[in-house]
Parts: sequence; structure tokens; C-alpha cells
Amino acid sequence: MRAIDRLIHAIQEKKNPTVMGLDPQEKVIPEYVRSKYPKTLEGMSKAILEFNQALIDATHDLIPAVKPNIAFYEMFGLKGIEAFEKTCSYAKQKGLIVIADGKRGDIGSTAEAYSSAFLGRTKIGGEEIAVFDVDFLTVNPYLGTDGVNPFVEDCLKYDKGIFVLDKTSNPSAAELQNLEMTDGKKLYDQVAGLINSWGKDLIGDYGYSSVAAVVGATNPEELMSIRKTMPEIFFLIPGYGAQGGKAEDIARSFDERGLGGIVNASRSIMTAYTKTDQFAVEDYAQAARCEVIRMRDDLTGHIKMG
Amino acid sequence: MRAIDRLIHAIQEKKNPTVMGLDPQEKVIPEYVRSKYPKTLEGMSKAILEFNQALIDATHDLIPAVKPNIAFYEMFGLKGIEAFEKTCSYAKQKGLIVIADGKRGDIGSTAEAYSSAFLGRTKIGGEEIAVFDVDFLTVNPYLGTDGVNPFVEDCLKYDKGIFVLDKTSNPSAAELQNLEMTDGKKLYDQVAGLINSWGKDLIGDYGYSSVAAVVGATNPEELMSIRKTMPEIFFLIPGYGAQGGKAEDIARSFDERGLGGIVNASRSIMTAYTKTDQFAVEDYAQAARCEVIRMRDDLTGHIKMG
Repeated sequence: MRAIDRLIHAIQEKKNPTVMGLDPQEKVIPEYVRSKYPKTLEGMSKAILEFNQALIDATHDLIPAVKPNIAFYEMFGLKGIEAFEKTCSYAKQKGLIVIADGKRGDIGSTAEAYSSAFLGRTKIGGEEIAVFDVDFLTVNPYLGTDGVNPFVEDCLKYDKGIFVLDKTSNPSAAELQNLEMTDGKKLYDQVAGLINSWGKDLIGDYGYSSVAAVVGATNPEELMSIRKTMPEIFFLIPGYGAQGGKAEDIARSFDERGLGGIVNASRSIMTAYTKTDQFAVEDYAQAARCEVIRMRDDLTGHIKMG
Repeated sequence: MRAIDRLIHAIQEKKNPTVMGLDPQEKVIPEYVRSKYPKTLEGMSKAILEFNQALIDATHDLIPAVKPNIAFYEMFGLKGIEAFEKTCSYAKQKGLIVIADGKRGDIGSTAEAYSSAFLGRTKIGGEEIAVFDVDFLTVNPYLGTDGVNPFVEDCLKYDKGIFVLDKTSNPSAAELQNLEMTDGKKLYDQVAGLINSWGKDLIGDYGYSSVAAVVGATNPEELMSIRKTMPEIFFLIPGYGAQGGKAEDIARSFDERGLGGIVNASRSIMTAYTKTDQFAVEDYAQAARCEVIRMRDDLTGHIKMG
């Protein structure tokens, strides 16, 4: 089954278009969890895994997918990457779709190597080995088609997907992404056109492509304008909540079946235990579950799931 | 000492503006090396390390720097990253500058995490730990200033450097990078303007900034035009040799002291042993040394080193 169909199926089953970001910075992990382990790269990596597994245990029946951002693992070196690998495996065991947020991208043969790591297979002496073997990877488009094609080829071959950065949700995103071209289009429009072309052979049963796009929720007009240029492209939507993105604005970029994207929340779920007196710190996973329910109800109050 | 001054000093000492790319795909490593190890991720990673160390042993007196591209290690998973880490350590022991080619980039707090991994320090319980601790990292500019600033801050704090992608050497590079804006500038000109501003507080003793740029050698007119827009920016120059970049064209982007950039060669050095009958396969490192000398002489025939 195409990756995008697996994702949409999971969204419909859980009736929840939310992806939980697993970005375990030191400051988001409760001190009582961290203090069980030595203050080393290995100790932190164990604390991260305990924290992630508890969050997954508490939410896997409610959410379709998780999105670990590799930066927050790479910063702890080899042991951090091991925690990333184990987090991905654990999430898959619990039936979750895994979106590895790595924003990888390079020229042709090098993009092939990245794609082997995350989506395809690494070939050694005729053997083919799945390495991180996630469902989706986020990809940076700056190098153009020959830097993205190797990922697209593995999406076709191994039923995987990519989310290509189009319009991100950070304050400086507009600096380059909103530059206006001589034809009146913005850079993100040009990237959108490329994403459409990269995804055309990967349209799944719901009419969306496994070549998907990252489009922030922070500017509602832009979100709608980008939706018009990419009707068959599924969105990974950061920027909900603290960054200003509202459920009603996001909903307008979804179709009449309640499909169109998946909304990311990382810190608001991971640190829900710090936001209220309702929970003791030991109940951080339960607090995360409550925030997932609150967010789901907020989103589905505006997005009518089929 | 600023990272860019360390790099320029090494270039002057070796009288060679070449960086050896260490991109150890399976097919570039001689079969007799690979066959010493099992056909597993761990086995390949050991073969990679043996291969890299032999290349470094054979060339470290001639070259100022190495550039391992992380994709070719990440594709072998944890064990591959271990080979990356050991390759970096070995190169540093041999007095070489290490440029980690990761093309990393993300929004603010996540870019901070990447920067901690490669340039800065990872903080755990008040301790600060250097993780991969390389000299330079390549960075993707698509997310704008707040995605690059965390790297720049670590460059200031820890005397590190970055090479920001401006104009890459791959066939599709022009698709986005050459798009023309309403003000007549191309996207790579806009990125060049940002690189100038990101680098302004990091100008070293030679007048170049530790915020440097990746500019391909494949289009000589572009290389010169980009040089004019970035007079204080040092270039990492891919595309020499097989991709069409010529020493005489590259030389024109250098200043009267013979400074201005460092030229990358990966496959031509790593696979020099396959290009001639002069060497047995067991002499692959010696063949690499000869290719390094040939390339140095070609470059310095046009670039007059001070």
C-alpha cells in the first residue's frame, strides 16, 4: 500500500489528523526521569528512550503517527542515534506511522545514500539491508530535481513517502521562500510546482501523493494559496498552537472528506505536564494524552472526518 | 584562531587548496578490503574506516583538509556513524581540518541541536560535551536566518565555521538556485547577500569569514559573478574535474594571494587506482596520493600560492 494511503488510513481510523513530534531536548524531559541515568551521552539517550516510550504508550491509540526530529538525537552522538532507531522501532511496533524529520538533501548519488538510510535499502555484497526503515522522511528541495529523484524512486520501490519543505513555519521562512520571481510567483510556488511533478506517479487511492509537502499553519492566506497550487499534495503542517496556527484556518486547506494534511505538535504535547496543576510531574505521559485529546477535539471540531 | 584562518593557514602550509572528499560508497572500496570483513553494516563500516585511514595516511602531508559526506556513513546506520566519528578523529590526529558535509538545516531550536552535534557542545546537567566536534559543517539556507544563526553563534563561541550552500554543482542546481527575482537578482544572489550578512562578525586575519559558501566550479561565469557579490566569503568548490570545472576558471575566483577557496575532489582521488594500469589495486592509497599531487599541480599551475 502506498505510504500516503497507510497514513490517511491511520488518520481515518484514529479520527485524528495529529502527528506527535518527538523532540526530546533535555529541558522537556522531567528531572526525575533524567536523574535515573548518568549525565552522559549514553545516560541522556536512555532517558530519551524512556520518555519517548512512555509518551508512545500513552498516546498510540489516539494518534496515527510520530515525528522524531533527528537533530535532537544526533546532538547526543552515536548513543542518540541509537535512541532514534529504538524510538522508531518502538513506534512501529505500536502500529504508528513514523515520519523521520531530517530535512535531508544532497546531489544525486549522495541523495541516494540518504534515501538508502531512511527509505530504501543499503546494498552490501548483493544483500539489501533496511537501515532506519521509516515510513516518511522530510526532504529539503534547494538542490532541485536530481537531489530529490533518488528519494522518489525509493518511494515507488518500497512504498515510502517524503515531505518536501515548501513553506516552513519559522519567523525567517519568508526571507527566501517568499521571494517573488519575474513571473509573479513566489519561491514557494515554484517549489510547489516541482513537488507536483515529483509526486505525479505516486498518487494513492485517496487522490493524494506519497510525495507530500511541509506547509506551515502560521499564515492562513498562504496556506490556502498553496493548497490551490497543490491540490493532490498532502501537507505536514507545523505551527499549530503556540506559533499561532488555528484549527479553523488549517481546516480550510482540507477537503470535504476531512483529508489534506497532518498537523504537528511537539512541545505542547511533550511538556503538557508543566502547563497545569492537574498533573504531578510523574504523570507527564497522562498529561500528554490529555493534550492529544484536547488538540484532536479542537482540530476535528473544524475538520469533519469522513 | 578563527576556523577560516586555521583552514587558510593549512592551505598555505601545504601549498594546496584541495579538500579530499571521503565518500566511501561500497563500489569505490577495493574488493580485497571489503572481503576482509563480513557483509554486514558493521563489516562495511570497518572496511570504510580501513579505507579512509589508508587514504589519510597516504595524503595527510599533502592536503589541508578532508570532507566526509555524512550520507555515505548514515546509510550504514549506527555502525556507519561510528565510522564517520572515527574518520573525523583520525583526520584530526593527523593534523587535518575536518569539513563535515551534512547540508544540515532546520528552524531555530532544531538548528541549535544540529549545531551542538557538529560545532558546539551538547549540554547535559550543566556539563558541556563536544560530540562530533568537526571544524566546519555544510549548511542548507532554505529556512533563512533563524535557521542559520545557531550555527553562526557556535562559530563565534567555539571558533568553528560553516559552508552555506549557495550554488551547487549538480545538473538540477539551476532549477531553484537560478530563478530570477523581480529585482533582477537570482536566488543564489539573494542567498549570497544573506551569507555576507551572516558572516560579517566572523572575518578572520586573511579577510575571509568563517561563514563560507559552497559554489560549484561547473559554470565559470557564474563562479566569477558570485565572487563579485561575496568578496569576503571563502568558497568550497565542488565540480572540479569529471564534472567539468577547470583549474584556470577556478583560479579567477581567487585573490592575488592565491586565496579564495578550497576545491573538492572525492571520487577522482578515491578511485584513482581504477584509472590506470600503473597501480595494483593494493596500491589504492598510493594511487590516491599521485592523483592528489596531479590535482595540486594542476590547481597551483593557475593559482599562485603566496
